[in-house]
Amino acid sequence: MTPPKTPDAPPARLSLISRHLAPVYPINTPYAVERLPSTVDTSLLPRIQVREITTTTPKMSQPTHPTLLIPGPIEFDDAVLQSMSHFSESHVSAGFVATFGETLSMLRKLFQTTDPASQPFVLSGSGTLGWDLVAANLIEAGEDVLVLGTGYFSDGFADCLRVYGANVTELKAPVGTKPTLPEIEKALSEKKYKAITVTHVDTSTGVLSELKNLSALVHKVSPDTLIIVDGVCSVACEEIDFDAWGLDGVVTASQKAIGCPAGLSISMFSGRAMKAFENRKSPPSAYFASMKNWTPIMQNYEAKKPSYFATPSPQLVHALHTALSQILAKPVAERFAGHKAASDKIKAAIGALGLQQVAANPDEQAHGMTAIYLPEGVKGAELLPILAKKGVVFAGGIHKEIVTKYIRFGHMGVSVLDPTRGDIERAVKALEEGLAELGYTKS
Amino acid sequence: MTPPKTPDAPPARLSLISRHLAPVYPINTPYAVERLPSTVDTSLLPRIQVREITTTTPKMSQPTHPTLLIPGPIEFDDAVLQSMSHFSESHVSAGFVATFGETLSMLRKLFQTTDPASQPFVLSGSGTLGWDLVAANLIEAGEDVLVLGTGYFSDGFADCLRVYGANVTELKAPVGTKPTLPEIEKALSEKKYKAITVTHVDTSTGVLSELKNLSALVHKVSPDTLIIVDGVCSVACEEIDFDAWGLDGVVTASQKAIGCPAGLSISMFSGRAMKAFENRKSPPSAYFASMKNWTPIMQNYEAKKPSYFATPSPQLVHALHTALSQILAKPVAERFAGHKAASDKIKAAIGALGLQQVAANPDEQAHGMTAIYLPEGVKGAELLPILAKKGVVFAGGIHKEIVTKYIRFGHMGVSVLDPTRGDIERAVKALEEGLAELGYTKS
Repeated sequence: MTPPKTPDAPPARLSLISRHLAPVYPINTPYAVERLPSTVDTSLLPRIQVREITTTTPKMSQPTHPTLLIPGPIEFDDAVLQSMSHFSESHVSAGFVATFGETLSMLRKLFQTTDPASQPFVLSGSGTLGWDLVAANLIEAGEDVLVLGTGYFSDGFADCLRVYGANVTELKAPVGTKPTLPEIEKALSEKKYKAITVTHVDTSTGVLSELKNLSALVHKVSPDTLIIVDGVCSVACEEIDFDAWGLDGVVTASQKAIGCPAGLSISMFSGRAMKAFENRKSPPSAYFASMKNWTPIMQNYEAKKPSYFATPSPQLVHALHTALSQILAKPVAERFAGHKAASDKIKAAIGALGLQQVAANPDEQAHGMTAIYLPEGVKGAELLPILAKKGVVFAGGIHKEIVTKYIRFGHMGVSVLDPTRGDIERAVKALEEGLAELGYTKS
Repeated sequence: MTPPKTPDAPPARLSLISRHLAPVYPINTPYAVERLPSTVDTSLLPRIQVREITTTTPKMSQPTHPTLLIPGPIEFDDAVLQSMSHFSESHVSAGFVATFGETLSMLRKLFQTTDPASQPFVLSGSGTLGWDLVAANLIEAGEDVLVLGTGYFSDGFADCLRVYGANVTELKAPVGTKPTLPEIEKALSEKKYKAITVTHVDTSTGVLSELKNLSALVHKVSPDTLIIVDGVCSVACEEIDFDAWGLDGVVTASQKAIGCPAGLSISMFSGRAMKAFENRKSPPSAYFASMKNWTPIMQNYEAKKPSYFATPSPQLVHALHTALSQILAKPVAERFAGHKAASDKIKAAIGALGLQQVAANPDEQAHGMTAIYLPEGVKGAELLPILAKKGVVFAGGIHKEIVTKYIRFGHMGVSVLDPTRGDIERAVKALEEGLAELGYTKS
């Protein structure tokens, strides 16, 4: 079960090695920006480093382990995991600053934004921190926010917004569906909302929201409303065309379809969102999650200038750099199509087993995960350990209304894009066998 | 310059492998706690994993690189970096839950607290997030906080407290010193403070605050005031006796003396602090940094029960587990003594070079870093690249009043505790040679 290297690994590894060769120019001070030369003098490099590096780069392969097919964290590529153990570097060294800057620039490509006013953020934190970033910076106390209710994660976003004083209206859909455009249009006509939030894929149900038409509707009927997307389980597996669709914010995490270990909150905000932030009457209502503190830092990193607010995680940023390099080695449209093709196959196989999905409508089914109702009489607490025994880890339920009635199958990243791994086929076979062991036969 | 393995590495590596063998029992749902057996049935383990694992564990050694001797991040041990590339695991799998639970229990030993009411937290985030944890949970809007002003980092803590509505009084000391006990006693007598904050080592100046007598004073003259320590540059290199000294909170980060890559906010709060949190009249004023959200999760992890609020970083937690296993393989008193002995040697060498420290008073000098005034005519922007060329990375200044006038030398973790590395000797030699190259002669 050792995952083989993906076809993308060699260039990524090259990129990793090139980082090792990056110049080390340690003006380790946040006040040093203005004193730095605009191009780095590599003659300052310790020569010994360049000479020995390629012979000592560790080769790694992962120990055999059960294949992780939950809706995040996902299985990671060797080169990405290898980047996690990068030797220690100063967070303001030229080498690391270049890595971080390139990472931010690559995010623009992943989100498909070329508008220079768009602003990426990469912060140490869980994906959840992205909610705080929105709630504490784009919304002021007492402002109205419309939250499209699709499940556990939209409820969480609503809770977070309330903590920072937003006046939240939740437009809730029944489990396994999403609010309809006419319902949303009606809600938008009843009140002027500072922002609307949509959970692109609600990881609790596998329901996919449709962003393009939603955004067009909001721009038409409530043009001042910011369109904020929770893309935790969608970025890098579902199409997101940031500029073309007129989105104002997408927040996500590293450990899902981006394929980098957990620990980074990753987000992109539009020029319009950044203006809304700048025009706040009150200061941001959080400190670590403050755009005031982080915006200049992100801009400096992207301009390859060292600066400091709080220490980022060089190892996680290296891993993200490797993951994004792999992703962008091919057109992103191919990546989205690859996830859709795998998802179609999985959903067909699940249908062939006689199983139902929580998201019943094919148009509302996510492409990076599937929430599967258990057959009558089969318990998740019995089925999941059987799957684990077969080397496949699925997740249990999380939506409180149906928590014991379903399981979740995550299919993102290398597990679907590298067919030589056979992860998906093994998972479907394990599911079929496991159900049979528990006495299930297709009715 | 490849760092050799420390004497502690073998047991840590064993611990890492034992994690690989840990049972995988994937009830991946936050609602599953009550359904889990109290002991895990290892017969559910995929057998193939146990058989193959020891042959595929990657051996790693770090590529040659300049030795990082800034006040964090520090140089990391091989086994710790190896843990960073742990294969992907569910954040609620029994194996990872056990690792996280043990990590939290080990933190109690590091902080020297046996009071079961003490509560450790390990969150994805920069060390700075610890300030938010204090400000958003222990303090309510309008409450008074006394901040002992020692430099850049106490100023930051004050800023953070203000963001969440605290009424902050800063008792500032001149650069290179700390407020005196009589000054603090006077301040405490003038107003009733909900909390007092002290930066144990202000990384901007290398000033060490004295916690034991300070805490005794506060308990005597203002017994209801919570005593909160910023231990970012002190935990695991300076003595902290949490229970005996009556501390209420210590917040720190992973990448300094603990010796784990950046990306984790690590903290310990007393039963009294947790009570103060529970007795809040208003809800916590942050969401990701909310103790309401995290306390039950930390308690469940420590009880080896899976639960979920936001996805932690399994890789960083594994690395922290390895780092703490190494630290606790010996009495912590030995660790503190080792840092003190190395610091004494470094400070003597710096004195012998005719250089002055920012913290002039020996009683106020940190043991994990040294802030060194540059000789007249020597610029940090010239000296630091010369040191880098010699394979040693120091940091520039950060305290705005003296930013260009000094450099910072971090001496924590393996660089001082593993004498076979020779990091400190090389650093002192590089400093001496570098200064000479810039024309400095001891006057």
